[in-house]
Amino acid sequence: LRPRRIALELSVLAKNDRLASENRKWLSEHGVKTLNIISSPGAGKTRLLERTVERLNLNDAQPARLAILTGDQEEDYDAERLRTAGAEVRQINTHSACHLDAAMIGKELSTFVRPGQHRLLIIENVGNLVCPAAFDLGESHKVALLSTTEGEDKPSKYPLLFRRASLIVLTKIDLIPHLDFSLELCTQHLRRVNPTAPILMLSAKTGEGMDAWIDFLMPQAQRERSPLPA
Amino acid sequence: LRPRRIALELSVLAKNDRLASENRKWLSEHGVKTLNIISSPGAGKTRLLERTVERLNLNDAQPARLAILTGDQEEDYDAERLRTAGAEVRQINTHSACHLDAAMIGKELSTFVRPGQHRLLIIENVGNLVCPAAFDLGESHKVALLSTTEGEDKPSKYPLLFRRASLIVLTKIDLIPHLDFSLELCTQHLRRVNPTAPILMLSAKTGEGMDAWIDFLMPQAQRERSPLPA
Repeated sequence: LRPRRIALELSVLAKNDRLASENRKWLSEHGVKTLNIISSPGAGKTRLLERTVERLNLNDAQPARLAILTGDQEEDYDAERLRTAGAEVRQINTHSACHLDAAMIGKELSTFVRPGQHRLLIIENVGNLVCPAAFDLGESHKVALLSTTEGEDKPSKYPLLFRRASLIVLTKIDLIPHLDFSLELCTQHLRRVNPTAPILMLSAKTGEGMDAWIDFLMPQAQRERSPLPA
Repeated sequence: LRPRRIALELSVLAKNDRLASENRKWLSEHGVKTLNIISSPGAGKTRLLERTVERLNLNDAQPARLAILTGDQEEDYDAERLRTAGAEVRQINTHSACHLDAAMIGKELSTFVRPGQHRLLIIENVGNLVCPAAFDLGESHKVALLSTTEGEDKPSKYPLLFRRASLIVLTKIDLIPHLDFSLELCTQHLRRVNPTAPILMLSAKTGEGMDAWIDFLMPQAQRERSPLPA
């Protein structure tokens, strides 16, 4: 990278960070917890969210508490799938852009998120392990999804996302018997770049790990479903 | 995108295109066919290249005809794997950049590719379905890899790569029995954005499709292996 390019990228990121701070302030003032979910294309973001919406709507006396923004370059397939599953969802098409940015999210907040009703906003980013990690959207947490089918070494080769993630979800664990995949080696790569974030093993297909995932998203929903003894 | 951002991106792309033309001229003058292989992280680029190197070295009286440049943000795992498989390979680390560009390739050409010996240069791009498609490197052909584990709809959601590819390789077809994957639906999505490029079904694990792949890369190697009857 030459100095002019670096200066330019820093200025784009600085402007994004300013808008992300505004988003974060608005979301915090209105009590909305926000997750920014990032992964490679096809790691299972939409499938996980379909199952999530079904679970929350089943468990929850107030199904309107979750709102979803979903990003892709083109098409609105993901919004359609999530709407069919029962979600309140809006699609953002980024066209030539390879990631969501804080301005795109900021535009949706006041017209889509309903303060006092929505308690959780999930942002499904563009399928890209690289660029979305650099752009703060104003989220409470970044969540990294890594599919077992992608191999063990991706966290070391593309470390930024995994370093910044508050939670790492290892998806498609039902496929492990059919893959040359070492969970031990994958964990070593993850721990090299992020020694502390919880690693959640999950299969949206079999349901394994879904209870822990729902508990991370919305602890109160889980408690409503299984009240602790007095 | 605001006008200033667009102008900037166009200027970055214009400069890249100029350097790509220089690469293309050099490669053409020295008789080197060049492939730019692009896919999501974990679609199987490196695995396919390991098997490719083994096949070519087995078949070929002149194993030095293939050179590989491999890109990742960090680490040199892919170069190590390919060297172990018998390749002449050099790793390019892009650090913050999410794609290879023509300048990075241009720097390697005169010191790595040996005119008169290397006939085929394979460039394994950074694992990213989105950004690398926009940057011409001076290649003869773009090759898009799409893994069956990524689902059927990625070509419609991220169309640029699939539109520009001369060949589309559908990888990990051995996993289809374990996935909810419709080959018919995937083909429909591919044909929406690219009606003509050949679609090669491949499993680097079982070897299915490898003959057709080698034939695309280096037709003469295949002929040497199985001489046609006079």
